[in-house]
This record gives sequence, structure tokens and C-alpha cells, in this order.
Amino acid sequence: LSSKLPNVGTTIFTVMSKLAQEHKAINLGQGFPDFNASQDIIQLVTKAMQDGYNQYAPMPGTIELREQIAIKTERMYGYAPNPDTEITVTSGGTEALYAAISAIVSPGDEVIVLEPCYDSYVPAIELNGGIPVFVSLSSDDFSINFSQLQNAITSRTRAIIINTPHNPTGTTLTQKDLQFLAILLRDRNIYLISDEVYEHIIFDGQQHQSVLRHAELRERSFVISSFGKTYHVTGWKLGYCIAPRELSTEFRKVHQYLTFSSFTPLQIALAEYLRNPEPYESLPQFYQQKRDFFVNLMQQTRFSLLPSRGSYFVLASYGHITDESDTDYAIRLTKEIGVATIPLSVFYNNKTDNKLLRFCYAKKEETLERAVERLMKI
Amino acid sequence: LSSKLPNVGTTIFTVMSKLAQEHKAINLGQGFPDFNASQDIIQLVTKAMQDGYNQYAPMPGTIELREQIAIKTERMYGYAPNPDTEITVTSGGTEALYAAISAIVSPGDEVIVLEPCYDSYVPAIELNGGIPVFVSLSSDDFSINFSQLQNAITSRTRAIIINTPHNPTGTTLTQKDLQFLAILLRDRNIYLISDEVYEHIIFDGQQHQSVLRHAELRERSFVISSFGKTYHVTGWKLGYCIAPRELSTEFRKVHQYLTFSSFTPLQIALAEYLRNPEPYESLPQFYQQKRDFFVNLMQQTRFSLLPSRGSYFVLASYGHITDESDTDYAIRLTKEIGVATIPLSVFYNNKTDNKLLRFCYAKKEETLERAVERLMKI
Ligand SMILES: CSCCC(=O)C(=O)O
Ligand SMILES: CSCCC(=O)C(=O)O
Repeated sequence: LSSKLPNVGTTIFTVMSKLAQEHKAINLGQGFPDFNASQDIIQLVTKAMQDGYNQYAPMPGTIELREQIAIKTERMYGYAPNPDTEITVTSGGTEALYAAISAIVSPGDEVIVLEPCYDSYVPAIELNGGIPVFVSLSSDDFSINFSQLQNAITSRTRAIIINTPHNPTGTTLTQKDLQFLAILLRDRNIYLISDEVYEHIIFDGQQHQSVLRHAELRERSFVISSFGKTYHVTGWKLGYCIAPRELSTEFRKVHQYLTFSSFTPLQIALAEYLRNPEPYESLPQFYQQKRDFFVNLMQQTRFSLLPSRGSYFVLASYGHITDESDTDYAIRLTKEIGVATIPLSVFYNNKTDNKLLRFCYAKKEETLERAVERLMKI
Repeated sequence: LSSKLPNVGTTIFTVMSKLAQEHKAINLGQGFPDFNASQDIIQLVTKAMQDGYNQYAPMPGTIELREQIAIKTERMYGYAPNPDTEITVTSGGTEALYAAISAIVSPGDEVIVLEPCYDSYVPAIELNGGIPVFVSLSSDDFSINFSQLQNAITSRTRAIIINTPHNPTGTTLTQKDLQFLAILLRDRNIYLISDEVYEHIIFDGQQHQSVLRHAELRERSFVISSFGKTYHVTGWKLGYCIAPRELSTEFRKVHQYLTFSSFTPLQIALAEYLRNPEPYESLPQFYQQKRDFFVNLMQQTRFSLLPSRGSYFVLASYGHITDESDTDYAIRLTKEIGVATIPLSVFYNNKTDNKLLRFCYAKKEETLERAVERLMKI
């Protein structure tokens, strides 16, 4: 059997989480909270199951949930997508990304990917016969270098994938970035896939620059979000895609054969839970507090942290401590110090090693404290 | 935007369920139970959520669930797959089918599909650049014509998809069928994708002929099952794929970028619930009773039912009643008589119209009674 993904092994998240478990390390690698979801939403899911909402949801999601997503979107970004034709509920952000890519990428199509990037983009492109074209974010502040981006565009460019707030770097795009992007794409037949799964986790009073705020970009975009990040339930695997009617039609054609529909009781529950904006509107403050707590603690260690402006990740530089490769160092930290992280190089196609580790701070304060205690030994 | 699936519209299941709703018709179309799941399993899911099992499950599924699947499989088919390397939990049978097809089908590969067949096979093949090759099941009893099957094999044949118990016809494969298949495939480099999502719904004392019983076939097969059908929760979207290590490796590479993992609380719950074989072992009797009840009632109508030996579907012939196409007739029955069904022609690539409608009898007795009362007016 010749593999369709010869270069793919097990994701780094699985590898590091397993290593963490084996060595009883504190897991600041894979991105997930170590505290529980609100009992309110658990209660709503339970009620939906008890009430018998256990059969197939409609393929694009229940209309009640899509309506609430439209209301939330308008509230947040001043744009109300049409629930009938522009919103599709998916089995997590990952499925939404895969479906969007599958809907538009044919063999030979080029898709521009800004590195470092989340690890599912490239295999999804490749499984559809597409050719990933890599453009590096600037190595100092991970901003987009627009002249490099422009140079990467060819007549075969089918799409560009962007991500804000950004995993793994914790950076965010600015309004100016989106304006440049709009100018760059003007009169070009190029789609945009905008991974905004951390849309509600953004700090220091910034406004999340959703592509949905920008009419010109919006009409060529698949915008992807996830409830797992917003409600502290990464294992619940519910997300959605907002795209103009014509794009949503193609998206749904794929989605209907990929998973067809997603866990019904949760859709019923979320249609209710979303009516209250408080949980998602308080999220910036909630996570900013965790970021500040962690950043403060880490000053007692030898690591230098880069700014984290969104997401629940922060990069730590260690080049002044050791010459080891980031992968070797991440493994050694897990085994010897008892703290698991993710080496940044895994998010680059060519494994660029900038001596940076990604920490996830979506953890209880005591977890962060225990981790930093261990890291102080370095 | 040129569509990658130009011939695909909205699935017939969505169309007919919507039409049923609009006309307040009794929905015997889309396959799902109209009774609730056991409160025991609902309770277990609730407990898992309350206990905090709400973050990412391991990519191939929790090990406890995979172990229970292995035990069930050995109990049922005398073969215990290795939970570490041969079982992968998916977001429903549909995702498992898509991942299996994506793992092995490259542009230009031919995949043999036996018609009529479930509607996701062909788009999944096409999205991977494969070429579906259609072989019709015999029009009288929907058995496999092995000489036609053999004739369809070429040097480009990559896989064959089989399905038992069979949706939409309610037929089942025999031990002899699998023996013929094994002989046919011997010394050929062709994979088998075996859709066995109705494995526990089989009647009249038959033994389900899982590919897993047959060592020779097993080593080239992806065997796909679904908990939704077994536990009356089609909207919970949890399934799995059993395949030899080498095939599972490729399957998981795709799965990890398609959805990564599936609803964690249900995996925790099922690992417990599966310990009791009674619910799935009593399923043949449970559904046989429904089949017999429905078949008996239908004798009061002008329809002639074909045998249903498994699944929860039965075909009804109406050619002696009217000349209408099955699609026209199904729409008219929904609108005028108030009973929704699925026309069989939609399961054929060339829309072969044998004047047959598919009824789903996974319904409460009172639902079936009310439906038949309406159908008696014809
Ligand atoms: C799907 S597992 C990876 C979780 C995540 O988003 C991350 O750690 O980057
Ligand atoms: C995924 S909706 C279709 C349900 C089903 O299996 C059927 O009705 O055939």
C-alpha cells in the first residue's frame, strides 16, 4: 500500500500528550483546558438527550443553532450571515477546514499557507491533490510579509489560508492586514479560508479582525469557528463555517458526505446556551487573566516569552539556555523536568528551528504554578 | 466556482424529510428510529460530562472504548482486532467510509460499487479523484452477480465496496458470497470496504456475515460499523473502522485531519455500556418484531413487499398500482397520502426505476399503524 500521505506520522499533539502521560509531566503541550465546562451547558445537553433529540440533525445543522450563530455573528462583527444558506454546522473546526479545502481544491491547485501553521492544513490540501505553497511569517514578530505573499501568487493559486488569533504563535491580524489582503486579492479569483477558532480569545482591548467585518473579503471567504475553544469543551467537536451562498453550497456538498451531520443534543443545547452572550463576551478577560498570571510566573524562569495577543498559546524562547533542537529540548523537558510543550518547528514544512517552544496556558492557576516551579529548575 | 461535485444536490434524505415536515406526513423515509434511546446510556453520557471528560479524546478513540469494541467483535465474529493498531473510532459510519476511501483512492483509481447503494460512496470516491465503476445487483433478489463483478475488475481496480445488511434493499450477504469474493480477490491487489453499520440488525436466525469472520478477506478490508444504528441514536454520530495495522495506519492519517477525534463523553459512556452485550444481542429480535408487525399490516394495502432480511428497511413494489416514476410517486404519497418514503432509483447512478419504494420501519408500532392506515387509502 503506497501511502497518500507518506510524510505524515502521528500528530505532535498526540505524541507529546502520550509522552507527558508516560512521564507524569504537566501537559502544557496540546491545546486544551484542564478545568471543566459550565454545568449549565452540560445540563442543557442532558436535557436534550432526555427529551429525545437523539436522531440525525439536519445536514447543515439545526436551524435554531444556525439562527443563534447568525445573531452572535452580527453582535460581534456587524454582519448577519443568512442561517439558511451561509452557515453550516460541522463536527469541529477541523472538519470545517477539511470540508472547505475539499470544496475548492482540485489536483494541481496551489494553496498558500503562512508558516508556522496548524498541522491539518497541509495534509488536507495534499489529500485533495493540491500543492501547498509556503510563505513564512516574519521571524521576529510573525506578521505577514505582504510582498512575499504577493510573490507567491501564481495563476494556479486557488486559495490562501489565514488564521487569527494565531495558533501556534498567539499573534493576531490587524485591520490593516485585512485591508492589504483585500487589495492583494482584488480582481483575483482566489478564495480565502480564515481559521478563526480562537475568535473569542483576544487580549489587551483588541477587536478580533474577523474576515466577516470586511465585505470585500467576506464574499470570497470560508470563515471557520469552533465551540470547543469558546466553551472549554475541545472534546465536544462542534464547529461551523460561514461562507457566501455559492461557497456554502459547495461546502455542504462535501460536508454531507464527510460526516453528514453532528451530535444533535449539543446543537439543541447550544441554540439555547448561545442566547446568553456573557460566556463568550467574558472570555477575553478570563483568558487574559490566565495569560498575565502565567507570563508573570515565567519571569522567575530563564525563558523569554514572546507576546501572546490572542489564542491560549504563548511562545518561549530558550536559545540562550541551550543549543538543543526544539524537538530534542521539548522531549527532554517532558522527561526530565516534567513539563510538556510543543516545539515550534513542527509547524513549519521545512522544520525551521527558531529555538521556540509553545506553551498552552488554558489551565488552572495551580497547574501553571506547579509547571513553573518545575521550570525554575532550569 | 466550478463545482467538484457538479451532479450532487441535496441528499434525498434531507429532501424527503423536509417534504414530510411541510406536509405533516409520517416519515418512513430517512432511516432513523422515532423512539428514544435507553436512559441508561443517556445517564452514562451525562456522568462523563459531569466528571469532566470534555476535552479531546485520543485521535484513534479512547483505549477503553477500543478494547470494548475488540471484545464485542471477538464475541460476535470470533476475531479480536488489536485495539492499539486495528480499531479507530470515528464521527459516525459516514466519516469512517470517507476516511477509508480517502486513505486508498488516488486520481484515476477505479472503485467498484454495487448498485443500488448508499449515497455517500460515489461522491467520496469522486472527491478523491477516483472513478466509480457500477455493477448492478440482480434486479430480482439484489444478490451479487459474480461474473459481472469479475468482468468489472481491471488493472486499475483499487477497491470494492460491499454492504451487508444492505441499505436500501434489506438483503444480506451469505457465507458463500464472501467465499466467492475471497476467491475473486485472491492474488489481486484490491481492497475491500465493508459497510456493516447494520451488523446487529439481522433476522430469521441468520448469522451476520461480517468480513471479519473471514481471515482471507479480513487482511485486505476496512470494516465499518456505527453505534447510532445499534443504540437508536443516529444523531450521536459515533462509528468505527476495523482494519489490519497497515491499513489502519493510512486510515488514521486521514482521520486525524478530517475530524481528529470524536465526542469524548460518549466514548467514555460507551466503554461502560458495551460491557453489557444484551442491548446489541437483543437487537435482531427487537427489529424482527417490528419488521413482522409492519409486513403484516402492509398486507392490508396494495403494495407488495420484498423480503427484508436485515437493516431496518423494506422495499415495496407498486408497479401494479401506477405507472408513475418512483420519485414522482414518493412525492405524491408524501403530499397526498401523508407517508414519506425513499424512491429506490436515487440509489442508482443511472436512476434505474424499478417501481420500488423504501420504507423504514424503525418506528413505534403506533407510527407504523397510522402510516398503514393512510396507505390503505390507495
Ligand atoms: C486537535 S489536537 C490539537 C489541539 C490544538 O489545537 C493545538 O494544540 O494546537
Ligand atoms: C445520513 S441520513 C440517511 C440515513 C440513512 O442511512 C438512510 O436513510 O439510508
